[in-house]
Amino acid sequence: MPFDVAAVRADFPILSREVNGKPLVYLDSGASAQKPQVVIDAVTRAYGEEYANVHRGLHHLSNLATEKYEGVRATIARFLGASDENTIVLNSGTTEGINMVAYGWAMENLRAGDEIVLSVMEHHANIVPWHFLRERMGVKLVWVDVDARGDLDPQRVLDAVTERTKLIAVTQLSNVLGTVVDVKTICHAAREKGIATLVDGSQGAVHMPVDVEDIGCDFYPITGHKLYGPSGSGAIYVRAERMAEMRPFMGGGDMIREVHKDRVIYNAPPMMFEAGTPGIVQTIGFGVALEYLMGLGMENIAAHERAVRDYARDRLDGLNWLNVQGTSATKAAIFSFTLEGAAHAHDISTVLDKKGVAVRAGQHCTGPLMTHLGLTATCRASFAMYNTTEEVDALIEALELCHKLFA
Amino acid sequence: MPFDVAAVRADFPILSREVNGKPLVYLDSGASAQKPQVVIDAVTRAYGEEYANVHRGLHHLSNLATEKYEGVRATIARFLGASDENTIVLNSGTTEGINMVAYGWAMENLRAGDEIVLSVMEHHANIVPWHFLRERMGVKLVWVDVDARGDLDPQRVLDAVTERTKLIAVTQLSNVLGTVVDVKTICHAAREKGIATLVDGSQGAVHMPVDVEDIGCDFYPITGHKLYGPSGSGAIYVRAERMAEMRPFMGGGDMIREVHKDRVIYNAPPMMFEAGTPGIVQTIGFGVALEYLMGLGMENIAAHERAVRDYARDRLDGLNWLNVQGTSATKAAIFSFTLEGAAHAHDISTVLDKKGVAVRAGQHCTGPLMTHLGLTATCRASFAMYNTTEEVDALIEALELCHKLFA
Repeated sequence: MPFDVAAVRADFPILSREVNGKPLVYLDSGASAQKPQVVIDAVTRAYGEEYANVHRGLHHLSNLATEKYEGVRATIARFLGASDENTIVLNSGTTEGINMVAYGWAMENLRAGDEIVLSVMEHHANIVPWHFLRERMGVKLVWVDVDARGDLDPQRVLDAVTERTKLIAVTQLSNVLGTVVDVKTICHAAREKGIATLVDGSQGAVHMPVDVEDIGCDFYPITGHKLYGPSGSGAIYVRAERMAEMRPFMGGGDMIREVHKDRVIYNAPPMMFEAGTPGIVQTIGFGVALEYLMGLGMENIAAHERAVRDYARDRLDGLNWLNVQGTSATKAAIFSFTLEGAAHAHDISTVLDKKGVAVRAGQHCTGPLMTHLGLTATCRASFAMYNTTEEVDALIEALELCHKLFA
Repeated sequence: MPFDVAAVRADFPILSREVNGKPLVYLDSGASAQKPQVVIDAVTRAYGEEYANVHRGLHHLSNLATEKYEGVRATIARFLGASDENTIVLNSGTTEGINMVAYGWAMENLRAGDEIVLSVMEHHANIVPWHFLRERMGVKLVWVDVDARGDLDPQRVLDAVTERTKLIAVTQLSNVLGTVVDVKTICHAAREKGIATLVDGSQGAVHMPVDVEDIGCDFYPITGHKLYGPSGSGAIYVRAERMAEMRPFMGGGDMIREVHKDRVIYNAPPMMFEAGTPGIVQTIGFGVALEYLMGLGMENIAAHERAVRDYARDRLDGLNWLNVQGTSATKAAIFSFTLEGAAHAHDISTVLDKKGVAVRAGQHCTGPLMTHLGLTATCRASFAMYNTTEEVDALIEALELCHKLFA
């Protein structure tokens, strides 16, 4: 079945709205994706007809909610290529997932002087939790630069490894440059040395088929709201051997088997890492979003996005007053750019907004990368499966207006 | 304006559904409350018409979402009687809130041998995070029992204080016994001694007007899904002086001002404690739920629930084969009970469910209290503002059937 972008667009109610009297051209899916009607309907139905807390009741509604909620674990496992659904921890997104690894795994298994290798293009979510360990425990952060095109050479990552390296934490897909990282090479080499690997899947899982077992990583966090699911949903894949090395992260109901005055007995993983009443309805909606994506086929989505990327790259290349950051041959359809002259990224995005074109402006939660690029901010147009080449044209037209205004 | 329970019920679509061919009698609001249509509509609208990430964009939809999201902070402050909205940290609920206090405040300010005073009727969410500190740091947990009626004498709590006491963590309203604790007396006395206080507001904020400044506590966490809001929403009030003593809890976007390879500069509170893309839509829905509650008036809600409690207490007292746990004169309309004879709580709840009556069975996340009571499980009927005396009758009728079946 070929990918029918018009049909996909029709599934997203917000895409037919106008902004400032213009049709919405939503190019900010890298920050958060819009939601298809099936997801919205699932959320509405869950609250309006089938709501109760999970795990704790024995009544009809609680059983119904529990069944729907717990079913999502298997859906996520299937989406990520994990053969055992018990390797999936449900949570509120990548930030919580990486913090769980920092507090639950790294704080337990690293010592002062141990090293964590990071790429310079990591998102703050994959930096700040490691800075916490630097501050609290004296863990050392080791940085690997990207090249002039924005590519990350796996060998450079592996060259940064010393005998003190305990973890390599890299993104699969840069939220600024669009760079796709060969994480498989990194993870397989790391595994041979007994070094843990965390692959930040926040962006990668949105734009390509993912198989965590083929990648060979230990930790792979994803975020529901970027995957066309509800806000506050997410999960992390944790390889079983690493789960066994972990302490629980948050304490509370559900993650516990017995609580006494003087001791506690934790639940088995993955429940051990899921404290308190979870994000029931958003998780149910997240499952629906992933079913929707798998129905379309991630290969089909990736092919469509490559076509949009190629078209956008050609057209943006034609604007000789525009500097695009990141020129990797295999990059995703994410274009961060600045305009020559004095126009600030914020001003550009404001002008674009007047034309209905929604882009993001700022640091994109990537301080070290901005420093590396010598920039304080960029505009970013991030394309998703529902974007079209016509929307590329709308972006170009709006950028040309910016150029006229600010030149 | 008198409280019109029929009008309130009409606002909750799920309450008109049937379960097992009987009208739903939902007596499990202590686990999670149902949602009024205004909340469901707000969620649907947020996803269908107004969705974008917050704080990070400058385009129309992002500004709209940010405005709605950030407006909730002031709503929560108003609901809790906090005069400064910057004392409100938005999160996913009480479990995250208490874990934030454990990791962000207690781990920073307590030392081995320091003591935390807890009541025996705390929920696991207000126990397990402190057990973590016992395991990791050698902090000592000091337990205070409730009396035979289930009341917690504030003086007994204060008598448990030693010069090593750094924190008193007590619930405002027991999720099992319904006991309302005089937290104001405890907090004011603790404050004079420089001891921090955490009042678990998960249940309390649902059933009575709350004024955190009058109570005088340092930390007051609440959970959105119990307050008729979406799952995965919540907040915690933190007195400004305590905020200044805290480290951030989770690291990531939004909570950070600058990220460099070798250092980080955190955002000012409360943002410093809010990492990553938040639960945007559920928080917006949470705000709508609180506005709905304030529109009805918490005093009116409390008065209605007292009337239902009195009626339920009288009728349950008439069943001489039923043991209700917790007989405090001022208790909330939460009734945990066992049946004399062999009937297990789970069997009772299953029979009740056949009659459309949803109750919870189990430990209710209160292991130490169950041990104190000498029980392994109870059934719990927890009433909310939308419950009626007719529903009490339905419960009694179903319980009488249980008695016949299992006697």
